[in-house]
Amino acid sequence: MSLVIVGSVAFDTIETPRGRVERALGGSATYSSLAASYFTPARLVGVVGEDFTAGHRKVLEEKGIDLEGLRSVKGGKTFFWAGRYGEDPNDRDTLATELNVFERFKPRLPESYRRAGWVFLGNIDPDVQLRVIDQMEGKPTVGCDTMNFWIEGKPERLAAVLERVDILFINDGEARQLSGRLNLLQAGREILKMGPTAVVIKKGEHGALLITEDFRCVIPAYPLEEVLDPTGAGDSFAGGFMGHLAAAGNLNRDNLRRAMAYGTVTASFTCEDFSVERLKILTGEEIEERFERLKDLVRIEKE
Amino acid sequence: MSLVIVGSVAFDTIETPRGRVERALGGSATYSSLAASYFTPARLVGVVGEDFTAGHRKVLEEKGIDLEGLRSVKGGKTFFWAGRYGEDPNDRDTLATELNVFERFKPRLPESYRRAGWVFLGNIDPDVQLRVIDQMEGKPTVGCDTMNFWIEGKPERLAAVLERVDILFINDGEARQLSGRLNLLQAGREILKMGPTAVVIKKGEHGALLITEDFRCVIPAYPLEEVLDPTGAGDSFAGGFMGHLAAAGNLNRDNLRRAMAYGTVTASFTCEDFSVERLKILTGEEIEERFERLKDLVRIEKE
Repeated sequence: MSLVIVGSVAFDTIETPRGRVERALGGSATYSSLAASYFTPARLVGVVGEDFTAGHRKVLEEKGIDLEGLRSVKGGKTFFWAGRYGEDPNDRDTLATELNVFERFKPRLPESYRRAGWVFLGNIDPDVQLRVIDQMEGKPTVGCDTMNFWIEGKPERLAAVLERVDILFINDGEARQLSGRLNLLQAGREILKMGPTAVVIKKGEHGALLITEDFRCVIPAYPLEEVLDPTGAGDSFAGGFMGHLAAAGNLNRDNLRRAMAYGTVTASFTCEDFSVERLKILTGEEIEERFERLKDLVRIEKE
Repeated sequence: MSLVIVGSVAFDTIETPRGRVERALGGSATYSSLAASYFTPARLVGVVGEDFTAGHRKVLEEKGIDLEGLRSVKGGKTFFWAGRYGEDPNDRDTLATELNVFERFKPRLPESYRRAGWVFLGNIDPDVQLRVIDQMEGKPTVGCDTMNFWIEGKPERLAAVLERVDILFINDGEARQLSGRLNLLQAGREILKMGPTAVVIKKGEHGALLITEDFRCVIPAYPLEEVLDPTGAGDSFAGGFMGHLAAAGNLNRDNLRRAMAYGTVTASFTCEDFSVERLKILTGEEIEERFERLKDLVRIEKE
């Protein structure tokens, strides 16, 4: 099945202790689509300005990503974000956010997207997320990301989204905020009551935790010798996760476990270079090789 | 093989958001010995005061722990520690530390301990750790814990210990401090150069990472719905880890992987109640059951 991915497409200026890039390709939908493209056909929904060149489109097209849903606004400027990381990749300062054309993003899905069966809603306004779900036909499997901004600012709309979500991706701090529970297992179980059948709690360098009614899975992050740029790691995790599931076709336990590992692996590659540089040149063989290494890292005993 | 365990035996007054205990049994050697006792015969080396009663001894004796090496100082008082935890178990304030008889702890190993073959040096003065290694006969396999206080205060003596250590247990912040490297893989590799053949970096609720020259293993902490009292979790981890290895007899990969899991499991039980209450009533069956659950939690695919 193919996977529709909705979110931001952006230019990022990023500074880390290891270097700096200016106006490099970024945005949640960009990272998620590139990550998913290694597993299943990805169809992007987003908006860019006139400054988004054929060269930028080509990065996505070369991975077979369908850009029919990527709207270009004449005279508009693409979403821009600037940030700086400290020695600890968790220390991040946002230096600039210019929403530009993204401010009035009202996605309209191309006909060809509507029966895709799988959709991933990047971390955007819950009203926009609802608008996308409404346009999908049949009973799509819905993955969704969110953040503190929406938990605080649009709790009712977010609740309406969650009722229609199958898998929620959320970081640990935000899971605590959304649920009012400090303990992550308790937080996950509270969130399940809001609608999702699975909650994936992302803990950054400490890995991720999958919680469903009847089983759990914990996967550590893939240990890297050096993190060049963590931007987009969470989006890549979700893209790899949803891409694997869409290819596998259902949410059974084995598929969910493997999705946790493929998400982990894809995110680790993203951190190895700035912007989407590593994802651009990544190969399916590299993903499989690291998947095997991750299996070995967490292996306690031969079965 | 039996395992000699050296460290503190203490009374702890502990306050957490879930309750409070006064002058309860604690100390690194206490937790490590109780944890190890489920896997191998444990022989404790420590010192207590006259306030350490037959009832306290009985807690240890009931698990078959050899107390020949536990010296009692007439008229002395046992090491006392008081601390308070916040809602986040990582927030810990020390309210009181009274070294008492522990201040002049100069362990002398009973004859029967010296050929045990395995020794775990709890987090104590490196000079005392060296004194213990010197008294062991043959070529013992040495596990060791340390902390910032010794890294800063006695770096040369700690270096002399590390040259004779097989497995170093150290938390993430202290691994960074000892190695001067922020990245944990790099930190681990630097520490290997100081002597140990394996470094176990403990990350508390985020699990642990084992690093050797030729392989690595990452195990998340066992997720708990509620942590009543995290005191002694790290000591229990090391006790379960070393206990399993001493029983298994060597440091091959399979044994080290299982040791990571048994350490993780034993530590998780410790957190389920105050002081050593949970370790006191723990059964081997419960350990095996949780070991299987942990295997399932981290399982990516059936082999």
